[in-house]
Amino acid sequence: MSASDPLPWRKLKSEPGPELMVARARFDTLQNPRTDEALRRLVLETPDWVNVVAFTPGRKLVFVRQYRFGRGHVTTEIPGGVVDPGEDPLEAAQRELQEETGFTSQRWSPLGAVEPNPAFQTNLCHHFLAEDAVQTHGLKLDAGEDIRVALLSEDEVLRGLREKAIRHCLVISALSRVLDLRFR
Amino acid sequence: MSASDPLPWRKLKSEPGPELMVARARFDTLQNPRTDEALRRLVLETPDWVNVVAFTPGRKLVFVRQYRFGRGHVTTEIPGGVVDPGEDPLEAAQRELQEETGFTSQRWSPLGAVEPNPAFQTNLCHHFLAEDAVQTHGLKLDAGEDIRVALLSEDEVLRGLREKAIRHCLVISALSRVLDLRFR
Repeated sequence: MSASDPLPWRKLKSEPGPELMVARARFDTLQNPRTDEALRRLVLETPDWVNVVAFTPGRKLVFVRQYRFGRGHVTTEIPGGVVDPGEDPLEAAQRELQEETGFTSQRWSPLGAVEPNPAFQTNLCHHFLAEDAVQTHGLKLDAGEDIRVALLSEDEVLRGLREKAIRHCLVISALSRVLDLRFR
Repeated sequence: MSASDPLPWRKLKSEPGPELMVARARFDTLQNPRTDEALRRLVLETPDWVNVVAFTPGRKLVFVRQYRFGRGHVTTEIPGGVVDPGEDPLEAAQRELQEETGFTSQRWSPLGAVEPNPAFQTNLCHHFLAEDAVQTHGLKLDAGEDIRVALLSEDEVLRGLREKAIRHCLVISALSRVLDLRFR
């Protein structure tokens, strides 16, 4: 997007780091093209993620409430999770919506993919829209999950954003593709 | 936001993990209140971050182009970085804007704080708006940086989002508080 673009950094070395369960750590040594100095940096090798903005036929949005270990409190998020090996992102989104909420939909559209953290993660998070979602199944939670489903109106979602009840940045990124989230 | 809210998980154990440069790993063992089973999970202890939506007097947005080690390519982002020990988020935002772009502003407002990843990170990212930003200084880059400044119109930002040139989720989250980012 600019005539004089920053140069790529040459990778001088790449060392395996500890297995971190949700990610595999790696330490890359890179050469700064501005100074030629070598720099050692963490990279987390992370599988792709998905999340889903799901609307019911009555235009409620399907949210999940769950305890999150990083922040140590219960969050309000849209359904999502990890793309399993061999899955494509849409399949993962359909599976996660059904497992976490019991909702399924016949009307899926991609909302693009974003970088959760290009500074030290390798992965993308793929956003999807599911319309006319209906609760056709029971929940199917794994050992790391204890989830409640919440159906919120658009106004409740916007209020939740302003009042900091909804503040996961990947959730906000997905919602921003279908709702006007401006504070002012 | 719901009558029957998920319960907090009891922390059974917390073990230090490896130092990861941008984060300190920790392994927490938590008890799932749904099943009573213990589960070991990674937590990355991360300092708070900031980023800045900066507008020039001519309503251009101040962006930075830099090579990012996680994704291994040059990204287009708004300025931002880590809150240093002893700094408050606004000071960090003012410092990062000036160091990464040379721009300063007399008109700052908070745009709220979001969770970069509540699942395994402890931190917040504080968003700020800087209006009437002017380039008053030279860049002051650290060893890990090689940055080009790009001034983009609102239309160029929206096109960048659609064409995937702008896809860092913390950047999208901050922008969504001042621009309507809907795809449809």
